[in-house]
Amino acid sequence: MSNVPSPVIWFTGLSGSGKTSLGKMLINTLKGDEVPCEFLDGDLVRDFFGNDLGYSREERIQNIKRICFAAKLLSDHGITCVVANIAPFYEVRDFVRSKLSNYLQIYLEVAPEVVVNRDVKGLYKKASASGSSNLVGIDIPYDIPRRPDLVLQTGQESIDDSFTKLKSFLIHRGVISL
Amino acid sequence: MSNVPSPVIWFTGLSGSGKTSLGKMLINTLKGDEVPCEFLDGDLVRDFFGNDLGYSREERIQNIKRICFAAKLLSDHGITCVVANIAPFYEVRDFVRSKLSNYLQIYLEVAPEVVVNRDVKGLYKKASASGSSNLVGIDIPYDIPRRPDLVLQTGQESIDDSFTKLKSFLIHRGVISL
Repeated sequence: MSNVPSPVIWFTGLSGSGKTSLGKMLINTLKGDEVPCEFLDGDLVRDFFGNDLGYSREERIQNIKRICFAAKLLSDHGITCVVANIAPFYEVRDFVRSKLSNYLQIYLEVAPEVVVNRDVKGLYKKASASGSSNLVGIDIPYDIPRRPDLVLQTGQESIDDSFTKLKSFLIHRGVISL
Repeated sequence: MSNVPSPVIWFTGLSGSGKTSLGKMLINTLKGDEVPCEFLDGDLVRDFFGNDLGYSREERIQNIKRICFAAKLLSDHGITCVVANIAPFYEVRDFVRSKLSNYLQIYLEVAPEVVVNRDVKGLYKKASASGSSNLVGIDIPYDIPRRPDLVLQTGQESIDDSFTKLKSFLIHRGVISL
């Protein structure tokens, strides 16, 4: 086991803000650097458990705790973790921070109207049609991060520009090489 | 990431059958061998999650799935996992086997009256006093493993004798060295 836990880089932001896209780009970079790493995408974690959880506040917290548990163990063993999960509540983000000693929170800041327009997964359209959805930003509030380690304006710049900024930040923190 | 997942050695058996004791002995041996390893003890996993789950059938399954998820990821990254968890139901043991490609099930066979007499954690006494307990072997049936990789008669032999047999088995399987 390593002495210093490897970083857990956690992308938070509304659905459609670019968490999975940036997460995949980062994983590819880490693999190119031969850094042992794992991608923990909220939806894939749900799949592993047979999609036993819905999207209520309590169920979202459950899913995030599952991710956090795996990330902590992997990180303790020198595996860098990239997490793409909205983690919308102060309560659960505080839980995560308390459990992970090398945690980097990347906030993808984007105006709600931008992600509603993009609607990558069709979730916002579905919410609008059904009237109730447990969708963060619609029925469930998203708590704006109070002390993110990095903010990326993914609503205002291209994904490549955001990724360039992310890489500079991670090089500075020693997570990836030049 | 390794090509072949590292083993997940899962001790199953009634409360008091010796899962945690053998698990700790095995972890010490693995560490002595400098094998990257992690001990996943059911109670410690519950602690991580703030003891949010009780001991009903459904809650036990939840806890086991959390352990399985972490074990799968660790194993994929070359970390040998030792799990001490009763995993009493065919249903959830089948889930575990389906998710872990290098899974070794060690069944600690012990007669119920032996563990009730031992009552290491005082659980059986408590169950007897309260009349209802969600205790496996008392209120919740324990499904006898149908195809364990190894059976140890921990009710009839000393823990040291069981551990000697366990080591022989794991040497034969290439998990630990001579």
